[in-house]
Amino acid sequence: MEIRIEHDTMGEVQVPADKYWGAQTQRSRENFKIGGANMLMPLEIIQAFAILKKSAAQANLELGVLPKEKSDLIGKVCDEILTGQLDDQFPLVIWQTGSGTQSNMNCNEVIANRAHVLNGGKLSDEKKFIHPNDDVNKSQSSNDTFPTAMHIASYKIVVEHTVPRVKKLRDTLKAKSDAFQHVVKIGRTHFMDATPLSLGQEFSGYVSQLDHSLKALNNTLEHLSELALGGTAVGTGLNTPAGYDVLVAQKIAQNAGLPFVTAENKFEALAAHDAIVETHGALKQLAVSLMKIGNDIRMLCSGPRSGIGEITIPENEPGSSIMPGKVNPTQCEALTMVCAQVLGNDVAVSAGGIYGQFELNVFKPMMVYNLLTSARLLGDACESFNDHCAIGIEPNYPVIKEKLENSLMLVTALNTHIGYENAAKIAKKAHKEGSTLREAAIQLGLLTSEQFDEWVKPEDMIGSLKS
Amino acid sequence: MEIRIEHDTMGEVQVPADKYWGAQTQRSRENFKIGGANMLMPLEIIQAFAILKKSAAQANLELGVLPKEKSDLIGKVCDEILTGQLDDQFPLVIWQTGSGTQSNMNCNEVIANRAHVLNGGKLSDEKKFIHPNDDVNKSQSSNDTFPTAMHIASYKIVVEHTVPRVKKLRDTLKAKSDAFQHVVKIGRTHFMDATPLSLGQEFSGYVSQLDHSLKALNNTLEHLSELALGGTAVGTGLNTPAGYDVLVAQKIAQNAGLPFVTAENKFEALAAHDAIVETHGALKQLAVSLMKIGNDIRMLCSGPRSGIGEITIPENEPGSSIMPGKVNPTQCEALTMVCAQVLGNDVAVSAGGIYGQFELNVFKPMMVYNLLTSARLLGDACESFNDHCAIGIEPNYPVIKEKLENSLMLVTALNTHIGYENAAKIAKKAHKEGSTLREAAIQLGLLTSEQFDEWVKPEDMIGSLKS
Amino acid sequence: MEIRIEHDTMGEVQVPADKYWGAQTQRSRENFKIGGANMLMPLEIIQAFAILKKSAAQANLELGVLPKEKSDLIGKVCDEILTGQLDDQFPLVIWQTGSGTQSNMNCNEVIANRAHVLNGGKLSDEKKFIHPNDDVNKSQSSNDTFPTAMHIASYKIVVEHTVPRVKKLRDTLKAKSDAFQHVVKIGRTHFMDATPLSLGQEFSGYVSQLDHSLKALNNTLEHLSELALGGTAVGTGLNTPAGYDVLVAQKIAQNAGLPFVTAENKFEALAAHDAIVETHGALKQLAVSLMKIGNDIRMLCSGPRSGIGEITIPENEPGSSIMPGKVNPTQCEALTMVCAQVLGNDVAVSAGGIYGQFELNVFKPMMVYNLLTSARLLGDACESFNDHCAIGIEPNYPVIKEKLENSLMLVTALNTHIGYENAAKIAKKAHKEGSTLREAAIQLGLLTSEQFDEWVKPEDMIGSLKS
Amino acid sequence: MEIRIEHDTMGEVQVPADKYWGAQTQRSRENFKIGGANMLMPLEIIQAFAILKKSAAQANLELGVLPKEKSDLIGKVCDEILTGQLDDQFPLVIWQTGSGTQSNMNCNEVIANRAHVLNGGKLSDEKKFIHPNDDVNKSQSSNDTFPTAMHIASYKIVVEHTVPRVKKLRDTLKAKSDAFQHVVKIGRTHFMDATPLSLGQEFSGYVSQLDHSLKALNNTLEHLSELALGGTAVGTGLNTPAGYDVLVAQKIAQNAGLPFVTAENKFEALAAHDAIVETHGALKQLAVSLMKIGNDIRMLCSGPRSGIGEITIPENEPGSSIMPGKVNPTQCEALTMVCAQVLGNDVAVSAGGIYGQFELNVFKPMMVYNLLTSARLLGDACESFNDHCAIGIEPNYPVIKEKLENSLMLVTALNTHIGYENAAKIAKKAHKEGSTLREAAIQLGLLTSEQFDEWVKPEDMIGSLKS
Repeated sequence: MEIRIEHDTMGEVQVPADKYWGAQTQRSRENFKIGGANMLMPLEIIQAFAILKKSAAQANLELGVLPKEKSDLIGKVCDEILTGQLDDQFPLVIWQTGSGTQSNMNCNEVIANRAHVLNGGKLSDEKKFIHPNDDVNKSQSSNDTFPTAMHIASYKIVVEHTVPRVKKLRDTLKAKSDAFQHVVKIGRTHFMDATPLSLGQEFSGYVSQLDHSLKALNNTLEHLSELALGGTAVGTGLNTPAGYDVLVAQKIAQNAGLPFVTAENKFEALAAHDAIVETHGALKQLAVSLMKIGNDIRMLCSGPRSGIGEITIPENEPGSSIMPGKVNPTQCEALTMVCAQVLGNDVAVSAGGIYGQFELNVFKPMMVYNLLTSARLLGDACESFNDHCAIGIEPNYPVIKEKLENSLMLVTALNTHIGYENAAKIAKKAHKEGSTLREAAIQLGLLTSEQFDEWVKPEDMIGSLKS
Repeated sequence: MEIRIEHDTMGEVQVPADKYWGAQTQRSRENFKIGGANMLMPLEIIQAFAILKKSAAQANLELGVLPKEKSDLIGKVCDEILTGQLDDQFPLVIWQTGSGTQSNMNCNEVIANRAHVLNGGKLSDEKKFIHPNDDVNKSQSSNDTFPTAMHIASYKIVVEHTVPRVKKLRDTLKAKSDAFQHVVKIGRTHFMDATPLSLGQEFSGYVSQLDHSLKALNNTLEHLSELALGGTAVGTGLNTPAGYDVLVAQKIAQNAGLPFVTAENKFEALAAHDAIVETHGALKQLAVSLMKIGNDIRMLCSGPRSGIGEITIPENEPGSSIMPGKVNPTQCEALTMVCAQVLGNDVAVSAGGIYGQFELNVFKPMMVYNLLTSARLLGDACESFNDHCAIGIEPNYPVIKEKLENSLMLVTALNTHIGYENAAKIAKKAHKEGSTLREAAIQLGLLTSEQFDEWVKPEDMIGSLKS
Repeated sequence: MEIRIEHDTMGEVQVPADKYWGAQTQRSRENFKIGGANMLMPLEIIQAFAILKKSAAQANLELGVLPKEKSDLIGKVCDEILTGQLDDQFPLVIWQTGSGTQSNMNCNEVIANRAHVLNGGKLSDEKKFIHPNDDVNKSQSSNDTFPTAMHIASYKIVVEHTVPRVKKLRDTLKAKSDAFQHVVKIGRTHFMDATPLSLGQEFSGYVSQLDHSLKALNNTLEHLSELALGGTAVGTGLNTPAGYDVLVAQKIAQNAGLPFVTAENKFEALAAHDAIVETHGALKQLAVSLMKIGNDIRMLCSGPRSGIGEITIPENEPGSSIMPGKVNPTQCEALTMVCAQVLGNDVAVSAGGIYGQFELNVFKPMMVYNLLTSARLLGDACESFNDHCAIGIEPNYPVIKEKLENSLMLVTALNTHIGYENAAKIAKKAHKEGSTLREAAIQLGLLTSEQFDEWVKPEDMIGSLKS
Repeated sequence: MEIRIEHDTMGEVQVPADKYWGAQTQRSRENFKIGGANMLMPLEIIQAFAILKKSAAQANLELGVLPKEKSDLIGKVCDEILTGQLDDQFPLVIWQTGSGTQSNMNCNEVIANRAHVLNGGKLSDEKKFIHPNDDVNKSQSSNDTFPTAMHIASYKIVVEHTVPRVKKLRDTLKAKSDAFQHVVKIGRTHFMDATPLSLGQEFSGYVSQLDHSLKALNNTLEHLSELALGGTAVGTGLNTPAGYDVLVAQKIAQNAGLPFVTAENKFEALAAHDAIVETHGALKQLAVSLMKIGNDIRMLCSGPRSGIGEITIPENEPGSSIMPGKVNPTQCEALTMVCAQVLGNDVAVSAGGIYGQFELNVFKPMMVYNLLTSARLLGDACESFNDHCAIGIEPNYPVIKEKLENSLMLVTALNTHIGYENAAKIAKKAHKEGSTLREAAIQLGLLTSEQFDEWVKPEDMIGSLKS
């Protein structure tokens, strides 16, 4: 590998000749060999930094502390980052300094060096047109840039990735709920047979869970929209021009197309990450909802002979080669595994959140990594579950009908006709003999087959249906 | 112990003669010897049931399915429960059936029997004027009453107990923040000396954390305000009169003085407890905030000689008998222990939340127990921490001043006067020799003592203060 | 309430006249109003302190630093505590100072004052024969006594309460497994029908889980057997006579009847509670095992008509009054709720464990409270589940037989007789038509009914049974 | 991209022409787009499968159910996998079917196709010499192979990666503890000044924590050494030759060089993953230990002027350019972030562990992913922390000395010389006036400077030192 020499205040560092990063990035690579290539700082964070650095350059220009030529050059590199052209320039892992300083410097170095090249210079030039600290990092500190990038990346992934995919699944389940409104089936409480409801009603519960989870997730966005930028090292905003914090938040909002504002209190914004805790809490709630839904559907389609078997799901891959009908609920399994992971991630986020000290929380990369992972996984899993499972769910009418008709719970419909005591007699006989209620009723001479049909109508036992 | 005989469908049961409960309560006592006397169903739940049963009786009366005499009697007993007169009538533990059925029956039995006595009857009467199921539980099922009681109790404790106490602490910290706005001190990032800020600014971060946590907690109340009642056994509302669900929620809202509404979807309300997950998630966020605050204050008051020591806290109990100034931060310790507990409770709540099956989640008592415990503990701990610690926090001016003046970070103020390189020289000399910046600067002949005083003003380094 | 005046270095304190506790206990009561009467320091800790204080008095006597008269008096009061005679003398809550100092002082004060009374003195005497600090606390510090009490109480509850009850359940399940070794039933993987196994084999998995969990729990006892006592304030053993740490551990081992030893490293023993983390980790593993078992049994007994229904469990309380056979798995529910709680407690314990600072972890009461709670609940729940559920589990032979005979998976037995392709044909026809394999096979003319009986023997598909 | 057509029972699938995988792998790629390229099934699992498949082929050969030619070919491909030559042939993500079936099939397909090519065939041949199911998967099922691979991979990473790196750090800390045995410093309890101890004693607590954590981790290996292989689909071992389970475990033990044995109970081994829960529990305990250590060291090196500052750590990267001595504890930060992640992963593992149903737990890939991640991260972080931080820790003698001499706690040494009351007078005066004990003592005329030096010897207050 060809190398070039870079310098920092500690001396010389050898950097791959073709890479834009500089000494501080290289030192971090060598000092933090933790987790390997699968655990790089997420690209969502790098892209958030691109938005941030571009916005800061614009604000600095507008406030007269950065010349237009430099501001434009910085913006140009940021656009390259945003279009994915420089993805291989960010080699640092999550498990670095807890302030994310090294990834901030990675961005500063890459932007400065790339800008120098765009400006006609060479990477090997001793002096560069753009300085990573003085220009790219102007009016900034790692301590306020990294939390800003955390919020940008988190807000974006939630509204652009997670929410639409959850909504997609929610809409599918809503359509199923509507379609199945009149498919009356046995209910189950305590996992025991209970009074009937319709399959559509059962699914409406899932829809309601997702609606509430989406609302809860949405409630957290306001906190997440607050940006630390302008607080610099400790929250006081030392070394920023007047009006900078408000202006740079506006620039970020423009560039990101999302309603970011400057945080009213920068001290919290550096020292605590309760906004991350808050949003991840809502993701965890969503995971709880999805775990219930995924597990219910797993159980509802169980069988083909010896399970619950009231619905069928699409067959996406060969099950048992010899056993037809063994359609494993693999999408339920992937979904619920993701949910379990999110439950764990929530604890990791909290464990980072409780450990802030004085003016800086230094669990930043870990916290945002978990939020991004959870948001990504939940979105992906909802889409996969939707496309390969939910969308193809159908009632298994014969099973539903058989279980409903076999049910002893229907006897409650007879109370008003033949009295509670007689109804109970029928149920007891049927339970003891393993017969149907109809058979038991007729054998007991308490009613005729026609009366049974007239009086025992499960569809009358499920209440009024909501449209 | 004197006993009387009660009956249920399984036969005879011996009940203490002087207790109002009946056969089903007694069976539960005998079948669930788990956790003992410290783990009874919380009185908050019992009182929520009293509100619920009274409201249901009123709604049933209004809808013509319960006579006035019975409705009034039921209401009267509920009032007795609400004023704490029957606290010893609810002997069941949390660790019972997961639907809370047995506590619902405990309420039904106590209300029915007590009503009978209020009506002039005797506990030993074979026939009672009020029937626990047919009258007290009318238009209800355990499956919708227990989740309703969960929401009533949870909502009440959050708004009546937790929130006011958190606000009290928040207001104290705000007053401290205001009072300390001009107390300039050294900042700390990475637990290392950083540029200065004021003690008031530092505390403003805590205020902001609590403001956000309170907002997050408030956001969850809407979900919690939705009541399951009217869903009966599986959510369909079987056996309830038309309009019952809306009316009974209104009655509950009136009787509780809180904005309860009927849940739009009763199937979710029985089968999932995402609302509990959601509110507990916000309590967990609050715990994360408080853990940071409590730990910061613990560290800020550390010493008296070898710690950070920038604030003093009240001395509430003897520390070391021989060592003056050893004031242990015991309130910080109690507070942060509570926060750690809440972090754990959050996982218990989620573990229950993910395990709902079909039409019923059967982790109800455990889930609500954790919410009530967390809400109670956080409120109590905030109040204790407020009254016995926060309220007496004072700056330790000599320490603050000494550490600030010793700080090498102040050298940054000289950059604009003598240049970055000279400033760095001063800092390096001071660091190497353990001297102050002033001493090093004068020894290097780079500026006079007067110039140092004029140029190095920490109070100019902390930005503009918010009122 | 009558009061008496007690003094400490901070001045006068009013104490209930009839209580043995003194000024420091009283101050704690007033300063820590958190959690209330249900959250007192567990009696297990108080009793561990009694063992500790008695043992320390004996060691101090033997080492010549405490006169026999005082040592004996202290021992006598400790025996009173151990027999429960002074239970109402320990009013402090868990949520106090994180070192447990106040509960240590509560013990010292009660022992000293009660000893004085036993010695013929009066509570109101200005001077007492025994001094809480100089005598009862001799050669001790809160910092080493409380962690010692944590280990004593934790070790005791695990081996005396939890383990025997888990073993009882394990033995019941083993007996069931043996009894059901030849009850062949359908297996389920992915919650889908799979090849058969016997009900006894299924239960043997539960036994194996509990055996492994018990072994894991046992593995943690060695760490728990190490006692901090002798470390005094910071672990150095300042103010203890030579040989004290080893001797006092021997005394504790004798008095407790358990193999306690002095911790090789006292610094860890005060500053970290990894032993508590370790033992609770094993309790959490046990909870994971029990959650699986409890949920499986819940599902296996589901029905009576529309569930899995392969086993029956005892009916302990009335289910639905009208629906026979609706036996709710309430013991499964209590058990799995307990398990969820233990999962949460584990996080609370870890959150305390990570927060030790320098020479002292100050989350002691919270950590041990969770361990004691988990150990108590798991033991209680196992016993309740055993006595009221497991012991009465019986196969539901008709259901098992029907599901097994209906199963399409049995077709694999035909592969060697009629070839894979023909076997698959049979299965497909049966699946499509909802018929049995036998019917489909005969209709296809591929074999006779006799051949089917001879070749399709589920009992031959379950491998060799272990005795 | 060139493609070839593969078939399975569901029809045709297009596969990249140059890849060895087949139809089932390809279907999984298309059906599970969750998490992306960073979340592939870990190579540790793939390599464990290589050991497994080779061992199974050897056992099948020895038991006469697989010809030598095929067994050898399979072994040859497995060796290629083990040497990393086929890493790009395993494109599936973790978030697939919860049994890991698809990764098992991925291995089967790659091995069969690659073997065919090694045997002189072409990928495009319709018929292949080796069949993925009939040959490579012989005597196996996904249900027993995947848990076997979980145990192999987990055991290997713990003993080969994690443990040596933890030991390395442990040994460094032990060497530091030894080197610092006589460096007496102020102790801190409740984060308040306490009696002295030596820096070596303080570090010995860390060593003891790691020793205990390593012991706890080692305790879990026995459970992990039990292999499910031989249980096939549901644990009964259907379709395996007699003696297979024991023999194949021996082969695996030989090929892996680790003491694997066949699981005594295969039903547990498929249906529950308590062994994973157990080992991860020990990793979590290790994380708790490391969190305490990392945080202590972070605080001990805080400063340079306004912190604790009793030790110095290596400077690995530029801190503040202008502020000398600002050496951020970045390695502590990376380490403690990793620990927080492991705490979260532990909950994910438990959440999977509690959710097994009947004969199969379908959270397998998620559970093992978390174990491998935690084991990898902890090992990496210990090594990084060791090499870049621990190894360079040195006492900051001037600070240690100053804080010790300033300490008021030393006054306790005077009790025996001038009495408790006089000693307290000195301390109070010193505290009030901010003077040293020596100054206060002399001013009070209670002793001479020489007496002070003779009597107040911190080194006599730290007990006897262990070698």
